[in-house]
Amino acid sequence: MDVPEVPSKVDPDALTAVLDGRWAELRRGVRAQMAEAKFRDPVDLGIEAHRAQVLDQLRALAATDRPGLGFDPAYGGGGDVGGSVTSFELLGYGDLSLMVKAGVQWGLFGGAVQLLGTERHHERYLRAIMDLDVLGCFAMTEHGHGSDVQHLRTTATYVDGGFVINTPDAMARKEYIGNAARDGRLAVVFAQLITGSEERGVHAFLVPIRDDDGKPMPGVSIEDCGPKAGLNGVDNGRLAFDNVRVPREALLNRFGDVAEDGTYSSPIESDSRRFFTMLGTLIRGRVSVGGSAGSATKRALALAIRYAEHRRQFMKPDGDEVVILDYLGHQRKLLPALAKTYALNFAQEELVSKLHDIDTSAPEEEQRELESRAAGLKALNTWHATATIQAAREACGGAGYLAENILPGLKADTDVFTTFEGDNTVLLQLVAKGLLTSYKQDFEDLSPLATARFFTDQVVNTLLERTSVRKALESLTEGSDSDVFFRREWQLRLFEDREEHVVEGVAKRLRKAASDPFGVFNAAQDHVLRAGRVHVERLVLEAFVAGIERCEDPDARSLLERVCDLYALSAIEEDLAWFLGHGRLTASRAKAVTSAVNRLCSELRPHARTLVDAFAIPEQFLAAPMLTS
Amino acid sequence: MDVPEVPSKVDPDALTAVLDGRWAELRRGVRAQMAEAKFRDPVDLGIEAHRAQVLDQLRALAATDRPGLGFDPAYGGGGDVGGSVTSFELLGYGDLSLMVKAGVQWGLFGGAVQLLGTERHHERYLRAIMDLDVLGCFAMTEHGHGSDVQHLRTTATYVDGGFVINTPDAMARKEYIGNAARDGRLAVVFAQLITGSEERGVHAFLVPIRDDDGKPMPGVSIEDCGPKAGLNGVDNGRLAFDNVRVPREALLNRFGDVAEDGTYSSPIESDSRRFFTMLGTLIRGRVSVGGSAGSATKRALALAIRYAEHRRQFMKPDGDEVVILDYLGHQRKLLPALAKTYALNFAQEELVSKLHDIDTSAPEEEQRELESRAAGLKALNTWHATATIQAAREACGGAGYLAENILPGLKADTDVFTTFEGDNTVLLQLVAKGLLTSYKQDFEDLSPLATARFFTDQVVNTLLERTSVRKALESLTEGSDSDVFFRREWQLRLFEDREEHVVEGVAKRLRKAASDPFGVFNAAQDHVLRAGRVHVERLVLEAFVAGIERCEDPDARSLLERVCDLYALSAIEEDLAWFLGHGRLTASRAKAVTSAVNRLCSELRPHARTLVDAFAIPEQFLAAPMLTS
Repeated sequence: MDVPEVPSKVDPDALTAVLDGRWAELRRGVRAQMAEAKFRDPVDLGIEAHRAQVLDQLRALAATDRPGLGFDPAYGGGGDVGGSVTSFELLGYGDLSLMVKAGVQWGLFGGAVQLLGTERHHERYLRAIMDLDVLGCFAMTEHGHGSDVQHLRTTATYVDGGFVINTPDAMARKEYIGNAARDGRLAVVFAQLITGSEERGVHAFLVPIRDDDGKPMPGVSIEDCGPKAGLNGVDNGRLAFDNVRVPREALLNRFGDVAEDGTYSSPIESDSRRFFTMLGTLIRGRVSVGGSAGSATKRALALAIRYAEHRRQFMKPDGDEVVILDYLGHQRKLLPALAKTYALNFAQEELVSKLHDIDTSAPEEEQRELESRAAGLKALNTWHATATIQAAREACGGAGYLAENILPGLKADTDVFTTFEGDNTVLLQLVAKGLLTSYKQDFEDLSPLATARFFTDQVVNTLLERTSVRKALESLTEGSDSDVFFRREWQLRLFEDREEHVVEGVAKRLRKAASDPFGVFNAAQDHVLRAGRVHVERLVLEAFVAGIERCEDPDARSLLERVCDLYALSAIEEDLAWFLGHGRLTASRAKAVTSAVNRLCSELRPHARTLVDAFAIPEQFLAAPMLTS
Repeated sequence: MDVPEVPSKVDPDALTAVLDGRWAELRRGVRAQMAEAKFRDPVDLGIEAHRAQVLDQLRALAATDRPGLGFDPAYGGGGDVGGSVTSFELLGYGDLSLMVKAGVQWGLFGGAVQLLGTERHHERYLRAIMDLDVLGCFAMTEHGHGSDVQHLRTTATYVDGGFVINTPDAMARKEYIGNAARDGRLAVVFAQLITGSEERGVHAFLVPIRDDDGKPMPGVSIEDCGPKAGLNGVDNGRLAFDNVRVPREALLNRFGDVAEDGTYSSPIESDSRRFFTMLGTLIRGRVSVGGSAGSATKRALALAIRYAEHRRQFMKPDGDEVVILDYLGHQRKLLPALAKTYALNFAQEELVSKLHDIDTSAPEEEQRELESRAAGLKALNTWHATATIQAAREACGGAGYLAENILPGLKADTDVFTTFEGDNTVLLQLVAKGLLTSYKQDFEDLSPLATARFFTDQVVNTLLERTSVRKALESLTEGSDSDVFFRREWQLRLFEDREEHVVEGVAKRLRKAASDPFGVFNAAQDHVLRAGRVHVERLVLEAFVAGIERCEDPDARSLLERVCDLYALSAIEEDLAWFLGHGRLTASRAKAVTSAVNRLCSELRPHARTLVDAFAIPEQFLAAPMLTS
């Protein structure tokens, strides 16, 4: 088989350099700080002690300049969005409660003040937020509206020169709000703005929730959400407002303002577009969650692979006990997941770079594309974390079930990542919607002529797809089965072709939506979700390929090539029914995919430890007793 | 499409009657007791308080006659093995720590005394075990040997008329032992028996580990395993023995005994066969874990489906908010899992019946078949629990992450089920090994003539398979795609045919094992695991079909028929790549499978609540605040 051999030994530092990418120096700094004893995991702490420890760690972070990275240099910030998001990502190597608490304070709360507020808010609050002089909440989700935040029901009514904030009923209570149960003093509250008896849609308001003594402000009720599956170092709570009065200036007024006389004005006409523009500016949180899910996944894999190299079970005929990572079944549990973790690392790095570089004046299309990418990668990253941490726990047997061996905490803490900062299912729908935008114009103009043209285009596209694309695939399939699998161009074309076909199929199904929008959408929902997923998988493979290009060490590069093959081929294997059912792979080639994955597992097995060492996780976060006893 | 309609309303009690099966009356009794306030879940309890609560609940159970069900009537037991296992299963509706604690005391510890011991042990201990006058441990697993217990390394050396128990090093410490950290007084310790300097393999010994004051006995070290992911009401610990002396009668001597002069005797010659016979008698624990995993899964589904009928999100064009169970994507998350839960219920019931009915004098083949079925169903039941409880948590979003809403506890408690009482991967290998027994004779006699005959048989089988079986399949495929999907005979033949093909393929691969046993086995491990899995899936489908036969209510029956279709078709969909790649389904039929699953989801959606109500879970275990606010 014409595939380059993997060198026998690869320097993990060379891999770290590629994985770390553009913010490598910053990453080294965060790792060094996290290696300090203060940043230890919570071990057998009750909820209150855990919350106290996390707040203490948060103050230690505040003493560095990293919390300021995402803020405006005019107020002492670093003006380095990419660096800010990257440092949240790295916090994912440690106690995830700290990552979430930091994310709430500097990402969501601070980010909202910066991005939705104007100079008067910046001037007054940004330094205090960076320094933790003001701890705050991001109070968007309500008990009755989580995914559908556009319809949340808290009100902010302009009366007598100020706003009155109200929670009309229990369904409108603010729910799961981080920093609310214990530490928060100020909250960014999202509410329906009403002025002159007109509703103007959702806006954000700065509302003090506790006084200097930590007591709830008059009219504010605060409840503790109580114990959670994990993340118990974060004080999530519920907030309700009973005629709470705030001044007119409490409105974060970048995208909409109310004059003293109650007149409403906004640079964006449509309430709905304005709201989604506001949400769009808050993309950093979603990017950070995806990134830190990746970090937690890396930590779980590092633990499980170290254990699998340490643990032996069952005798070989020669009397030696088998190291469990030598079992194909065990490799299958961990190594494709490891390859996907590499792939997602590169995709995440690319996303952070794009987020950092995008100009606020960039065309809307570019903004939407970035939001879609952030949504899709958040979904894939967090589902991958859930599945991989679960597999890592099982791969460590009973040892993996003991709290001292870290995996139970990782599992419990990350479990909510798939449903917070956007439920993954909803996010994939958002991605699919974006993909259909180009089709949407056709839907809107359905005059007879346009319809005819649309159908013609469809047919032409279908023909094109059947001829040129698949021809291109076929031209790549000369030689034996296994040869073609290792051609990057073939892998890329296969992913691309699948995406085109799936998106086109969804577009066809949704064309009938005018008659019964919900029914038609719902009947196609599985196809819609698939479209989102295969699109992101294509982006991920492309990002991996681009990442390899940046690798200068030839040995590391050739190892990465094989890891990329394992990612691509195990992704194909996972979706084998689609490739077979749509004539993209023959039955014999499909079987060969499985053999190729097995072969890659056995080739990469000797490098498994190197591949996890390259994550450069501070050793104190890998100090599981199961690895040394 | 020629498929009978599902009646619009089905009585859940009629379903409960079929699900409950042979031990229906016993089930009603357990449910009634569990509805008492005492059996509440642990809410926000620390570990020690939780352990105390569980012990207290255990005493309440001991006051009934159910703990005695599995024991010999001569000592006050009920002689009802099936009833005993069924009552463990039902405990899975409540706090799983109680189920595990009860399982350790009466199933593992008590079971070992009864089944490995003889009259002298029964006389002395059985009543005390049933009444909780003696709390005990089942000390098999060691730090270094979990799956491979045959090679555990604790020793029991016969010296001066008694045994000396020793832990040679830290790897031989008894690990994860339930009841050890706090409550256990006596332990059944598995150790290599040595007499007259000869090793006689693993035997079980009764070893006191604590005195009447609860202090460790001289020479016994006890450590607490500390906090675990879940099951924190069970006091798991580590035991080590330093020259602990027990009398000769401490040996549980049903399968092997040492005379006063040190002479060893056993009704079973081979050490290895003896050990596996001893293990075989302990099958009840594995059956109970599978059953209670099923109960926990039912509870998770009942919570998630009630929530999905209560929760609304996003507006329809008509202004109503959509009940989330109306989304196809949400149905897809929950309803195929619900169908599989029904299927596994019937398979579990059948297993318990077989376990109950088997005669101790039954032929060894029948014993082995039962053990294989118990192993396979334990694996499928517990993996299904892990996946379904995870999906249920995600389906409840942020609410599913709060401890008060029960799902976090279910997830954490059941997580270890896939790896304790036999690691699932190892168990599926055991199943596959059983399937290959008929081939094994061929392997052993590989003289030229036998070899030739073997190959001829292979070829003939293959031909037969290609002609008769597939012809049988084809003869069932007349009519439209969707018609055939709903023919039970076609589904059954498809499962059967897949199993035959996969098992034959594994046999072929393993034929070469003589040259390099580990290498050949390892290269085929993924096929071996698949063989185990598809075999069990076939048994499960057959059990579902047999269960429906027992249903007398016509409406309930026709609903069960559709649930069975959903189980069968979603199992086919999950393995679609196999059916496509092996020519069992055409591409167009494969697509139709997905449409049929979607259609069944929408047909069963109105019955979802009825289907979970039929589990008859005591309401106190479904009292999640998310369902009423």
